[in-house]
Amino acid sequence: MKCHIIDALPQPGGQLAELYPKKPIFDIPGYPSVNAGELVDNLMEQIKQFQPGFTLGETAVSYTKADDEWFEVITNKGTVHRAKAIAIAGGLGTFEPRKPALENIADYEEKGLEYFVKEPEHFRNKKVVIAGGGDSALDWSIFLSNVASEVTLIHRRNEFRGALDSVEKVQDLKNQGKIKLITPAEVTAIKGDGKVEAITVAPDGQDPYDMETDYFIPLFGLTPKLGEIGNWGLNIEKNAIVVNNALDYQTNIDGIYAIGDINTYPGKLKLILCGFHEATLMCQSVYNRLNPGKKFVLKYTTVSGVDGFDGSRKEAEKAVVKKID
Amino acid sequence: MKCHIIDALPQPGGQLAELYPKKPIFDIPGYPSVNAGELVDNLMEQIKQFQPGFTLGETAVSYTKADDEWFEVITNKGTVHRAKAIAIAGGLGTFEPRKPALENIADYEEKGLEYFVKEPEHFRNKKVVIAGGGDSALDWSIFLSNVASEVTLIHRRNEFRGALDSVEKVQDLKNQGKIKLITPAEVTAIKGDGKVEAITVAPDGQDPYDMETDYFIPLFGLTPKLGEIGNWGLNIEKNAIVVNNALDYQTNIDGIYAIGDINTYPGKLKLILCGFHEATLMCQSVYNRLNPGKKFVLKYTTVSGVDGFDGSRKEAEKAVVKKID
Repeated sequence: MKCHIIDALPQPGGQLAELYPKKPIFDIPGYPSVNAGELVDNLMEQIKQFQPGFTLGETAVSYTKADDEWFEVITNKGTVHRAKAIAIAGGLGTFEPRKPALENIADYEEKGLEYFVKEPEHFRNKKVVIAGGGDSALDWSIFLSNVASEVTLIHRRNEFRGALDSVEKVQDLKNQGKIKLITPAEVTAIKGDGKVEAITVAPDGQDPYDMETDYFIPLFGLTPKLGEIGNWGLNIEKNAIVVNNALDYQTNIDGIYAIGDINTYPGKLKLILCGFHEATLMCQSVYNRLNPGKKFVLKYTTVSGVDGFDGSRKEAEKAVVKKID
Repeated sequence: MKCHIIDALPQPGGQLAELYPKKPIFDIPGYPSVNAGELVDNLMEQIKQFQPGFTLGETAVSYTKADDEWFEVITNKGTVHRAKAIAIAGGLGTFEPRKPALENIADYEEKGLEYFVKEPEHFRNKKVVIAGGGDSALDWSIFLSNVASEVTLIHRRNEFRGALDSVEKVQDLKNQGKIKLITPAEVTAIKGDGKVEAITVAPDGQDPYDMETDYFIPLFGLTPKLGEIGNWGLNIEKNAIVVNNALDYQTNIDGIYAIGDINTYPGKLKLILCGFHEATLMCQSVYNRLNPGKKFVLKYTTVSGVDGFDGSRKEAEKAVVKKID
């Protein structure tokens, strides 16, 4: 079966990749410890041969039934994907950026005002203002100090909260003049004609002033929202999608499944290892749905190996039958 | 909770460790490929801090209820373990050796006739005869050729079936005189007064003769048998233990759970990753059983770290709150 992934975030991996890529997880079976980002990398390597498709930075907002067999899923950017089954693996929901309370902010979104750094190269030789005091603000200030012509980091306190490494690195780059630091201060306005041209900075106890910039990137954290999926007619309980059994994790809508942290059923535990199990049983159910009446015989990879859609083959070294004389 | 493992095999890991430790598995989530033995090693490392107990080389044959709270599990060697819950993670059943059809064979079992090499040091400077033509026979012949005073490998064909490496290594050791090879031939009798002192070898088309030896190790493979657990009053279907729901994988006997390949329920897939999920939900259920009325709050290891029973603590590096000036 072919799988296509739609995700609101600019890269696959959900909160593991976006929120805590450098944090160790201790309860992935077989890994005494694995960094969240490393786990995502390993999973990406593992699925590579099955050539899944990716639509990233887009949110699945609605679906229709094109006919008895086919669903169509539509994203916030109008992309349409056809599929015979949908699995919602939405975690805590779509990660939506916490936005600063600024007038006319929507007018500047994706016109110089960015909530994610999707493609660092867009910022090459540009002036960038980052606002925030956590790991994202620190890490992107460090990264973009090598890309942008000018990086200004604005935070409402003098203290930053993040990995010691990152805080110290920003201190170094500030000392070298590679990052301009304005603290404690807030951004109180965005200015520009059809795109960001300047922001207004208000340092604590001082007069506000305008500052030219090409980009303004407020990194105030992400809030998960169930979002449009809440209007699909799914059975929802406490922000989770009810799957009425642990047989195949199908929702109340035939052909739509929910797996991982986003679903709920009696005994549910929101653990990654449970998501792996749910995904596996969901796939089995989808296979039966797509191949009615065809008997599926589960083959062990140790015995049968794995055939990739790219023509690759992985298998154990074969036993030989050989005479000893 | 404290966990104690009873296993018929001489080492933990079940079929992964005993049958195919060197075979790669391709469907453990997060491992594009992992050798079965390496997966077991990693799991052992992961559980170490929780100090589980091990009773190996013994088979759980029966249980009683000592009182309302406590079970007692009795092994084939009479060892008694007390526990408040039992989880049967018996895979395909107890691995029982395929025994050669020889007269009075039971009289010699563990008296020079061994079906497993539990402790290689027992064979130091002894004469050993191994029978069989597969990986176990090849690998133990190689290993013991450095331990025993004499290793004889007997097989009913000239051809061996196993990893190319192993077959070639045995050929080498035979050429060097470190392994004595008798093929095609069969062992037709065991002789000795209260313990193995000799075997009778019958080479194809030649007269049989006796050969002195301290040990005879027939390695003709293992057959899984549900065994005594079949008489516990559990609901059994096609050699698997029925768990009537996927809520907590409890059997028809209150307090006895069945997880992994040995259980069955609607939608069951016999995959290692499913066993991980089942084990986790079982533990959660056992916790509630042992702590009635106490609310269990699931804590994420990324957030709360892991506290070992040995006093160890694993946790993510803490974020700092630090001024940049």
